[in-house]
Amino acid sequence: MRRIGLLAASSVAAIAFHPIASPSSTDNLPGFSAQSARIELDWESKFDSIPAPDTIRQNMRRLSARPHHVGSPYDHDNAEWILARYKSFGWDAHIEQFDVLFPTPLERVVELVAPTHFVAKLQEPAVPGDPTSSQRDEQLPSYNAYSADGDVTGPLVYVNYGVPADYEELERHGISVKGAIVIARYGGSWRGIKPKVAAEHGAVGCLIYSDPRDDGYAQGDVFPRGPFRPRDGVQRGSVADMPLYSGDPLTPGVGAVPGAKRLTLAEAKTITKIPVLPISYGDAEPLLAAMTGPVAPPDWRGALGVTYHLGPGAARVHLKVKSDWSTKPIYDVIAMLKGSTAPDQWVIRGNHHDGWVNGAGDPLSGQSALLEEARGLGELVKQGWHPRRTIVYAAWDGEEPGLLGSTEWAETHADELRAKAVAYINSDGNDRGFLNVGGSHTLQRFVNDVERDVQDPETHLSVWKRSQLLRIERARTPNDRQDLRRENGELPIGALGSGSDYTPFLQHLGIASLNIGYGGEVSSAGVYHSIYDDFYWYTHFGDTAFVYGRALAQTGGTMVMRLADADLLPYDFTDLAHTVHGYVGELEKLLDMERDSTVERNREIAEGVFTATSDPWSPTSAPRVEAVPPHIDFSPLDNAADSLTRSADRYAKAAAAGHAHGAPSDAVLARVNALLLQSERRFIDAKGLPRRPWYAHELYAPGFYTGYGVKTIPAVREAIEQRDFGEAAQQVTVVAAVLNSEAALVDSAAVALGGQ
Amino acid sequence: MRRIGLLAASSVAAIAFHPIASPSSTDNLPGFSAQSARIELDWESKFDSIPAPDTIRQNMRRLSARPHHVGSPYDHDNAEWILARYKSFGWDAHIEQFDVLFPTPLERVVELVAPTHFVAKLQEPAVPGDPTSSQRDEQLPSYNAYSADGDVTGPLVYVNYGVPADYEELERHGISVKGAIVIARYGGSWRGIKPKVAAEHGAVGCLIYSDPRDDGYAQGDVFPRGPFRPRDGVQRGSVADMPLYSGDPLTPGVGAVPGAKRLTLAEAKTITKIPVLPISYGDAEPLLAAMTGPVAPPDWRGALGVTYHLGPGAARVHLKVKSDWSTKPIYDVIAMLKGSTAPDQWVIRGNHHDGWVNGAGDPLSGQSALLEEARGLGELVKQGWHPRRTIVYAAWDGEEPGLLGSTEWAETHADELRAKAVAYINSDGNDRGFLNVGGSHTLQRFVNDVERDVQDPETHLSVWKRSQLLRIERARTPNDRQDLRRENGELPIGALGSGSDYTPFLQHLGIASLNIGYGGEVSSAGVYHSIYDDFYWYTHFGDTAFVYGRALAQTGGTMVMRLADADLLPYDFTDLAHTVHGYVGELEKLLDMERDSTVERNREIAEGVFTATSDPWSPTSAPRVEAVPPHIDFSPLDNAADSLTRSADRYAKAAAAGHAHGAPSDAVLARVNALLLQSERRFIDAKGLPRRPWYAHELYAPGFYTGYGVKTIPAVREAIEQRDFGEAAQQVTVVAAVLNSEAALVDSAAVALGGQ
Repeated sequence: MRRIGLLAASSVAAIAFHPIASPSSTDNLPGFSAQSARIELDWESKFDSIPAPDTIRQNMRRLSARPHHVGSPYDHDNAEWILARYKSFGWDAHIEQFDVLFPTPLERVVELVAPTHFVAKLQEPAVPGDPTSSQRDEQLPSYNAYSADGDVTGPLVYVNYGVPADYEELERHGISVKGAIVIARYGGSWRGIKPKVAAEHGAVGCLIYSDPRDDGYAQGDVFPRGPFRPRDGVQRGSVADMPLYSGDPLTPGVGAVPGAKRLTLAEAKTITKIPVLPISYGDAEPLLAAMTGPVAPPDWRGALGVTYHLGPGAARVHLKVKSDWSTKPIYDVIAMLKGSTAPDQWVIRGNHHDGWVNGAGDPLSGQSALLEEARGLGELVKQGWHPRRTIVYAAWDGEEPGLLGSTEWAETHADELRAKAVAYINSDGNDRGFLNVGGSHTLQRFVNDVERDVQDPETHLSVWKRSQLLRIERARTPNDRQDLRRENGELPIGALGSGSDYTPFLQHLGIASLNIGYGGEVSSAGVYHSIYDDFYWYTHFGDTAFVYGRALAQTGGTMVMRLADADLLPYDFTDLAHTVHGYVGELEKLLDMERDSTVERNREIAEGVFTATSDPWSPTSAPRVEAVPPHIDFSPLDNAADSLTRSADRYAKAAAAGHAHGAPSDAVLARVNALLLQSERRFIDAKGLPRRPWYAHELYAPGFYTGYGVKTIPAVREAIEQRDFGEAAQQVTVVAAVLNSEAALVDSAAVALGGQ
Repeated sequence: MRRIGLLAASSVAAIAFHPIASPSSTDNLPGFSAQSARIELDWESKFDSIPAPDTIRQNMRRLSARPHHVGSPYDHDNAEWILARYKSFGWDAHIEQFDVLFPTPLERVVELVAPTHFVAKLQEPAVPGDPTSSQRDEQLPSYNAYSADGDVTGPLVYVNYGVPADYEELERHGISVKGAIVIARYGGSWRGIKPKVAAEHGAVGCLIYSDPRDDGYAQGDVFPRGPFRPRDGVQRGSVADMPLYSGDPLTPGVGAVPGAKRLTLAEAKTITKIPVLPISYGDAEPLLAAMTGPVAPPDWRGALGVTYHLGPGAARVHLKVKSDWSTKPIYDVIAMLKGSTAPDQWVIRGNHHDGWVNGAGDPLSGQSALLEEARGLGELVKQGWHPRRTIVYAAWDGEEPGLLGSTEWAETHADELRAKAVAYINSDGNDRGFLNVGGSHTLQRFVNDVERDVQDPETHLSVWKRSQLLRIERARTPNDRQDLRRENGELPIGALGSGSDYTPFLQHLGIASLNIGYGGEVSSAGVYHSIYDDFYWYTHFGDTAFVYGRALAQTGGTMVMRLADADLLPYDFTDLAHTVHGYVGELEKLLDMERDSTVERNREIAEGVFTATSDPWSPTSAPRVEAVPPHIDFSPLDNAADSLTRSADRYAKAAAAGHAHGAPSDAVLARVNALLLQSERRFIDAKGLPRRPWYAHELYAPGFYTGYGVKTIPAVREAIEQRDFGEAAQQVTVVAAVLNSEAALVDSAAVALGGQ
């Protein structure tokens, strides 16, 4: 990390321990006194020069040399190798093993049985010149983990992305999927949503294919000529109902350790209700070409050289899935550097190590950089660095099937984590481009500071500057652009849904979390979860110089060092309160829009708009008349958000005053830090979200019908979206209570810091 | 036409001779006294029952039996048959012949010469079961009429739709087309724009192909399974630079009659500068697949199973075009019913009869209905109907190559038309669906009235009601929807650009014009200008029951009857003034937006947005810095539009007062009608538009760079778009003068009608 050109000093009110400007300097490092900032920036500067692209490349080459999915020999081998590396870096490291349900395929059949016969090959061919693509004996076949077993035959119906709105469109065409096998394209939701919604509508089987429009030649040249998915490439992946809970389907809420209470297979609610298989576009094309029925709506049409039909009609398909449902071991590597003065405050950093096949991009581009980051911190310790807090680095196993390694570890150590965790910082696959950060909004300001201090390796701008310019380009209004142009401003971070290992920390335990990674240019998404996501691909099309790997190590390492060393934990509640106000406003607007659109739609149904505009030769029916949503009393949420704003102001003033009068005493800092450490925990409601108690964070959750996509204030938002307005009104009070509890904690921290 | 259910009486201010409500009734027919309205509605009712779908079917079968392009034996045969039909209907009819330049192909070659060899077949195969598709000996080969001859070889560059913005995008990728052959897809502009813009940028040849995304299997099943363009289907068509002038390229402004002054080929500015050929997507696919260079931007990618590259690179193409440039005869059929009391006021109605091949959809679906409409009017005359004004029906030849028949006739009879023409009503291809009307805004209210009186044959709503409901469905804002829901409101009509035979009447001579046709559901656009646009196609996928053909005859016939019989010509200047105000507002907003976007873009260039967000591995350059547009004095236009509004109000009051005090005398009506007849003529500026004097209407013109798409107040709008702000300011005064002249005429009419 290189310190870059001075920018204009901040003109906004000081709202943290130190006023925040850019870039970081000794009198401008939030959470640090001038003296401790000088020491910190010195160590960060030393750290910055350590991560070496070539070492990251060597890590990837070694870890991706053979397929390393859960239960494979090389998965265990990699864990042992990572463990040895940590030990060589001087860390206190060990492996924690869990025994988890992980089905692997025994039989897979997809065949068109009418009007002609075609058998899908379900096989990705080796590519000449790509050495690991031919390791067929060790590759997991293409399949969707946690698909139910089944042997079904039925007419084929095309359901677009297979999300609820797609079934509403089918209904308007008079099409039911009852007894049918649906074919959905990847995209538009997390894949596990597709069989879930299909089963809710009565389908008996589900195929998921990669349409070249979204994922193949329409995106660019295909492998090996280019980086995109070739004709026979298949996206593997889990279809467990992760929005219910992550981790081992048999041990929700508890670690999958010997003696743990385990559900039976029949009791495990995250296993699909119907069989599912993923297929390539090469295998999908004959199926889609054989279909009849109405032509699919324009938005539904992919890039295959066929007319997309909805079915059902001539095309009938036979689908068979049978798995080995045995338990497999997973191996998390856990490494620690003990804190000097606050060993019971943990800063946690993780990235998974298991892949679906060779997994060079996902996850090894991140894992290889993480290892290099850990080497750097180990070097600093050897040079005399003593982090104030304990640092925990983790290489998770079993992320691909369902965040198994991270979830089982978090569940096993839940009490200790609730007491000690300051933050969890996650990464996963890493590519070239822009830094993407999502996470807890108490850390938004902290993230902006770090972004100003890390250099983009190809443009030599700070990653903050490059991100700012990207957002200016994409801004929708002149006002948005004006806001973005403030050089001392903050770039908002996104909220987290799911899709990587932060979920158990953030949404189950209430630990402030971040997810970081570079991307946005050519990415390994083009060969995602296929045998082609390997070292050959990554060193031809990915971050071939591993300079974004180095940038990731610099970014993650700097974040860890600052959190581990700060005198005062650098959470910012003004950002939080501002964000919460935004969410509450969105909810109110959402309900108003639902009401307006229901009234308008009902009126259009009554005046005959839908029948008048439908082609009588291929008619679509009008949508259903819906009850007009009632008004809901949002005032508890508004009041609680106001309360949070007042508390945040009070805390900001106390922090600024503390700064003005010299650094607070160690005793004061200890009391305040102990409170701050619990601040994200206050967003946890003990009962959890309706119908999915494992998810207990009242601000952020993956959507029940989006899977990865976040829903903020999910209990209220999803109730409105699902038109359960009674539940929405009831959940308003639950969320308001949580916000009030947070406001009270922030107040206490302000008082402890010497505020009024 | 069937009178349909009573709607609420009008509550808007009476602003015409009679207050306008819906549907038409004896005390509510604009331009008619109660007494004459009773007579009129009685005749209209008689007319309504005459057009017979089966007769329209027989007309189409006969006229489409063989290819009938300009110069073919069957083209002449059809003209003679149409003439005989008119005579049998009791009309006074004759044929007018013109001799025009019409090139036909002698040699056509498209071949890929590197990196591999492929020869395009340039041939549409016959389809079993479709009898006329095999008439190869009489079919015109696929080509673009008025392409320059040429024999060129060069690298291939993909230019998307080939409009100016596409070349700006190419420039950002560092790609020039100098010396290259461009391949553009059909769509996004009129086809003639593509070779024009390509030549402006230095290309040496141009291929235009039908991408299946816009025109083929991505739209639906292809012929003969469905109605859309098959793999080898080709869109023929003219590429003359029609935005300069329509008609015979050798006789701009004068009729192509014996002895007319003719340009040499070299002097004819509407012939392309480079050779052009249209090709099928079957022929295009190997060319596109062979291309290299940057991957095309997402919006540019079609539906072929290839990755779209921009070139230039490996792919080199040889293109050869050579035509027979001889003169061919065209045959317009002109038929008249002489007016009883105002024989020197002409209501003109037309539709072309020539096709590119068998032309069932284009133009015979319209021509066949027009003939049936003429039969109906002839029947009425036999029953004793005496239209007040003269009715002229025309079957134009040579529309496809460049509106040849209509333009040469209009130019030949220009002085008589300027003196006598009340209105020109055009139709062309007709399909199932909604009535589309574009034209002069003085006729907007008239159009709404007729639409309320014609029934949609499949939904049994009035065509006005069905159109209203469609617009409600598509409305963007609640306010727009609210406006549309007024049952006594008016649905705006669109302005006309070009693309059919109204152009010489409206834009060269200043005759109030309308273009009418049904469509919006499955249409013969799917086989547009191919050998498959034939009777077999139309009777399987088109308006197979010919009920929309009947509706077109009812619509056109009713319009003609009302215009021919009205006591007072039913022009409405309030609509006109309202529309003009809208256009002026758009111009002011356009300049403001140009200014804002230039300032913003220049700022983003300066702050490095484009370089920061471009992928360093496939960089695009920033757009060029542009001068910020100056402010322009729009007050002459604002004042003139206000003046027009005042005159329109005055005229509306005079008309209402005239109605209140009993019908005006015949002498008053004659004076007022004589003025009104000239009202559209006032929009003609003798000098014409900058650089294209043939186009002289200051409100409506086809865009210089859109071809068919209209530009309203074109002299100012296009100057702004082309960033010639000096010319824009100068043209403001030209347009203002025309508007003031119109306002003066409307004032005179108000005074003549007895107003203040």
